[in-house]
Amino acid sequence: MKRANAPAAGPAALAALLTDFGTDDVYVGVMKAVLLGICPSARIVDLTHAIPPQDVRLGALALADAAPYLPAGAVAVAVVDPGVGSARAALAARAGGRYFVGPDNGLLSWCLGADAEAVRLEEPRYRLAPVSDTFHGRDVFAPAAAHLLNGVPLAALGPPAESWLRLERPAPTRRPDGALEAHVIAVDRFGNLILDLAREELPARPAFEVAGRPAVRLVRSYAEAGDGLAALGGSFGRVELAWPNGSAASVLGVGIGATVVVRAAP
Amino acid sequence: MKRANAPAAGPAALAALLTDFGTDDVYVGVMKAVLLGICPSARIVDLTHAIPPQDVRLGALALADAAPYLPAGAVAVAVVDPGVGSARAALAARAGGRYFVGPDNGLLSWCLGADAEAVRLEEPRYRLAPVSDTFHGRDVFAPAAAHLLNGVPLAALGPPAESWLRLERPAPTRRPDGALEAHVIAVDRFGNLILDLAREELPARPAFEVAGRPAVRLVRSYAEAGDGLAALGGSFGRVELAWPNGSAASVLGVGIGATVVVRAAP
Amino acid sequence: MKRANAPAAGPAALAALLTDFGTDDVYVGVMKAVLLGICPSARIVDLTHAIPPQDVRLGALALADAAPYLPAGAVAVAVVDPGVGSARAALAARAGGRYFVGPDNGLLSWCLGADAEAVRLEEPRYRLAPVSDTFHGRDVFAPAAAHLLNGVPLAALGPPAESWLRLERPAPTRRPDGALEAHVIAVDRFGNLILDLAREELPARPAFEVAGRPAVRLVRSYAEAGDGLAALGGSFGRVELAWPNGSAASVLGVGIGATVVVRAAP
Repeated sequence: MKRANAPAAGPAALAALLTDFGTDDVYVGVMKAVLLGICPSARIVDLTHAIPPQDVRLGALALADAAPYLPAGAVAVAVVDPGVGSARAALAARAGGRYFVGPDNGLLSWCLGADAEAVRLEEPRYRLAPVSDTFHGRDVFAPAAAHLLNGVPLAALGPPAESWLRLERPAPTRRPDGALEAHVIAVDRFGNLILDLAREELPARPAFEVAGRPAVRLVRSYAEAGDGLAALGGSFGRVELAWPNGSAASVLGVGIGATVVVRAAP
Repeated sequence: MKRANAPAAGPAALAALLTDFGTDDVYVGVMKAVLLGICPSARIVDLTHAIPPQDVRLGALALADAAPYLPAGAVAVAVVDPGVGSARAALAARAGGRYFVGPDNGLLSWCLGADAEAVRLEEPRYRLAPVSDTFHGRDVFAPAAAHLLNGVPLAALGPPAESWLRLERPAPTRRPDGALEAHVIAVDRFGNLILDLAREELPARPAFEVAGRPAVRLVRSYAEAGDGLAALGGSFGRVELAWPNGSAASVLGVGIGATVVVRAAP
Repeated sequence: MKRANAPAAGPAALAALLTDFGTDDVYVGVMKAVLLGICPSARIVDLTHAIPPQDVRLGALALADAAPYLPAGAVAVAVVDPGVGSARAALAARAGGRYFVGPDNGLLSWCLGADAEAVRLEEPRYRLAPVSDTFHGRDVFAPAAAHLLNGVPLAALGPPAESWLRLERPAPTRRPDGALEAHVIAVDRFGNLILDLAREELPARPAFEVAGRPAVRLVRSYAEAGDGLAALGGSFGRVELAWPNGSAASVLGVGIGATVVVRAAP
């Protein structure tokens, strides 16, 4: 009998991939071929393969942003894995009605809430043979996802993982004078600067300072911003700084890691 | 009872996406996850996500090139949307046996012929809730496409749109001396210069001049062109200038907007 | 009656695409739309579209790496085709339980073993009409793949191809002093230098020299390599040189074509 939460092979079987492999090499294509060889009815969605090489933190952030939009029963496969071939565990977990597969290096941690159950992917039946020391995306993670989508119970994939690595969530810090010190955690294609600050954390009338430049306009949409620097609530609930007919990143000359000071406007 | 033209969920349900989102961020992946959450049997094809940010005109051009190759009943979702969150309408339309979903900013206009019927996407049941002011691809357009693929009638998505923004099609101009002044409207990966000039508009023995350089060879294929600048009829019926073992764009140092003068050869 | 090896339309129908088209233009999306218009139940996987323009050799290499991971009955469509529109033949072949479709310019040759049967794609019923002289990916190859996935027998697509162009496989050469002279045949996203040398061809204790720099560590995984240049067996059985927390290509300043001398360590 199937478990309540088990994904069912069929039109609803959805795998969502996130890696730092890029799409110039055949790595991602080979993962998909392996996945579809085991679960031919799967639908595969690319979340992104452009995580900067080995940047587990940015991968975790992108995965946590996208995960709430995956349908129930979907399996997210995330591979940003500098430790491949080492003693780091390979994980599959169920959390919030979805499944997450990837290395135990913090990449999955912001998706695994209090309800999460996880296993270590050690059952040889559900891996390719032999398992390489360089490409677990193909040999371990894609097969695990495909078997989950085929209805194999999570517990069959390996022994329970009692714990896993958790990264600290990026968050603004509070200065002695009460100002918030937020940080640019991502820059999107449009040059928008995305902060580690939730829309709800903003003071009623916020004033921003970035790269020595003040910005006091808080707007609802890029269109409302018109020209010039403005702050708004972005697509995943975070504050972002945008320069709508240009790129805030280019105009200000700032990137990931830059500090943005937020105060209540006088 | 289903309408004659209504797409049917099932293996034939095809959504084709075109955006200026790039694929480095998770925006496109999230749109797909939302779409498949509503219509799990959909097939999704990426037309391109590399439209230059906010370049509605190039987006319209790429969409019009690709649309005739979409099977009947397919839904094209196009999002190049600098006006997201403003008063611009969100549209779904049926034209030529296919469906088109996107902002009312001209992006769809070259696909909506005389037979087009369109609605404004205002029915809350067929949008995510809440609808953000920054990401209608996820909250409005992907859901509309998925519901259309599920067989929801176009008219259920919102009130009829009586009119929509139409862009002027790029076209060559005629000089007083009878020469055609064509323009480079796109440069492809191979450096081919694609003109706003249909193959049929050429004189019998055309002579071209671009960047002060004459080209008089009109060939059938890249292979026939061998080395050196040549003109040929491209993959979507337009004249293009190619430098087969190189890049016409690099060799000539020209890009989008450049003028190409076309005369009948003496 | 179906042939034993014939692919069956249905959830198992898998097409894998490899081109030099990039994904900025709509070429790949249009190929997929055509394919799904003919075989609506196909699953499509992108192997890569970033083969350098017209680099048949690198395309052949990527295809040969990925092919063993395609499930039985899958159809690989490979288009790196500088000779499109010329007299070069268009091929479909069955080999190793899979199908390969593409131009007869060597691109497929490393996938077509002793058991291969091939035909020339000349049957008009299984091509678009008209066939352009510039885009056989859309007009010839995608339709052929779709019809194969629909169960059309290989022999129906055209007359048998008695022979086809075969590229020489890249391989190291032996110096008079017994050293192996290997070559960088690819550089992946991580800057790993991939050699034309199989893991099994290495001496027991190998010493490498590249760009005047010695490397004597042979490790199992990137993690084991830690910092500094190391050699290891890569994901497709070839030796590669890696600089795990950096890029071997950048650090050494070398790329495709560079020579790597391999000796037995003293």
